Amino acid sequence: MTRMTQRRQVTRVDSEVAVARPDTLAVEEPQEIRVNSQPVSITMRTPGHDLDLALGFLVTEGVVQDPDDVAAAINCADNVVDVTLQDVATLAPRSFYTSSSCGICGKSSIDAVRTSSSYDVATDPLVVTSGVITALPERLRAEQRVFDRTGGLHAAGLFDSSGALVCLREDVGRHNAVDKLVGWAVQQKQLPLRGHVLQVSGRASFELVQKAVMAGISVLSAVSAPSSLAVQLADETGLTLIGFVRGTSFNVYAGGQRLSL
Amino acid sequence: MTRMTQRRQVTRVDSEVAVARPDTLAVEEPQEIRVNSQPVSITMRTPGHDLDLALGFLVTEGVVQDPDDVAAAINCADNVVDVTLQDVATLAPRSFYTSSSCGICGKSSIDAVRTSSSYDVATDPLVVTSGVITALPERLRAEQRVFDRTGGLHAAGLFDSSGALVCLREDVGRHNAVDKLVGWAVQQKQLPLRGHVLQVSGRASFELVQKAVMAGISVLSAVSAPSSLAVQLADETGLTLIGFVRGTSFNVYAGGQRLSL
Repeated sequence: MTRMTQRRQVTRVDSEVAVARPDTLAVEEPQEIRVNSQPVSITMRTPGHDLDLALGFLVTEGVVQDPDDVAAAINCADNVVDVTLQDVATLAPRSFYTSSSCGICGKSSIDAVRTSSSYDVATDPLVVTSGVITALPERLRAEQRVFDRTGGLHAAGLFDSSGALVCLREDVGRHNAVDKLVGWAVQQKQLPLRGHVLQVSGRASFELVQKAVMAGISVLSAVSAPSSLAVQLADETGLTLIGFVRGTSFNVYAGGQRLSL
Repeated sequence: MTRMTQRRQVTRVDSEVAVARPDTLAVEEPQEIRVNSQPVSITMRTPGHDLDLALGFLVTEGVVQDPDDVAAAINCADNVVDVTLQDVATLAPRSFYTSSSCGICGKSSIDAVRTSSSYDVATDPLVVTSGVITALPERLRAEQRVFDRTGGLHAAGLFDSSGALVCLREDVGRHNAVDKLVGWAVQQKQLPLRGHVLQVSGRASFELVQKAVMAGISVLSAVSAPSSLAVQLADETGLTLIGFVRGTSFNVYAGGQRLSL
């Protein structure tokens, strides 16, 4: 956990009075992702769960079509992960360079922004109660270890249909937090993640809906607002998209059939 | 303004009671940026100020080295902006593909993540009072037209040293909001933006510090937390980095000499 935060002396100003004091920062560093020793991506991310991030990124971006083809993933240098594929034919070669908040990089045309999922989330029979949904943000927050110290990290939590936490990941980039979750599932041989709910700490953009679908997740719940394109993609793929989960209320933007009241 | 938001019927659930009602979404759409008819980037963004976004992106990412070389910028198709340069020698050719929250895409190595600015922000003699800083978030919020309706947009505001608003831009991606501001300044022939304060609605990542420096802005103030790399880059470039501006208090992470109490 240590590398996720950094102590630093800052000047705290309150009512025009300045006091020097230590502060804890969320660490942001570039990570290079290689496939069979070839660089395919640089991501600005928070260190920790680096293999999860690399594997999740490759799967949710459609670079690796078949997760079972992954033979190995190693930290081959500081901030460099190399993923070895048994069959390079499963590799869709292209370069990706991403920031701490970027998940759809490396596409060569507007149409190519959309990836094609191996999994059909529309057929997931999952049903969750509204009580489960409203409880998720608090559970996510309670488990967020780094946010409490830095105020600077996004979280993504994978929950089962009863609302029990299965896995949680944090990162300065919200798409990285989701990629780390999916990479964990790749390593656990749990893809597709049917029957699960993905709860994220921020807003729901197009890229987060896309990453959920690429992992076979059929319910995405966000604390804040979705974008228009996120709702459109949720509609098209059959994903249940929930936003503004606060207290006892939330909005259902798509896939309402998975909610039981 | 209309294209920035979209009306949609949603299901509002409160205390297990569902009601259908209209909701307003922040629009997210891909925009292709071309230079002399060649595609260089696809950005997920909120429509509006498309020319500003294209010009700001090209300058803050170092693709166009000299803003004076821009001969024209036009919407050549829906969601496609073409920027014409007088001298293509000023173009650093490489491909960028960015999401709604990405600003450092298209770099071919970790070192290349860092751009080189034409402007030296360290020498900006700007000094601002703590009273000006603490007033900025409220002024930014008061001017945010779309956020109030959607809850889904980031804002970037350019202020002078007295705290007066010079320009404000909104976007689903916080780096896009900053690029739109910088692109406005490119069109106004106002670069470098010495003597100004950039206030952003969210956190301060590495990429936002980099974009500020590329535009010659010497003070970046964020409502939330900076990352470790944002602080490091601020230190190295001489930018004043302020975070957690709330009520009468804030933290100064770098460049405290520009604050007068």
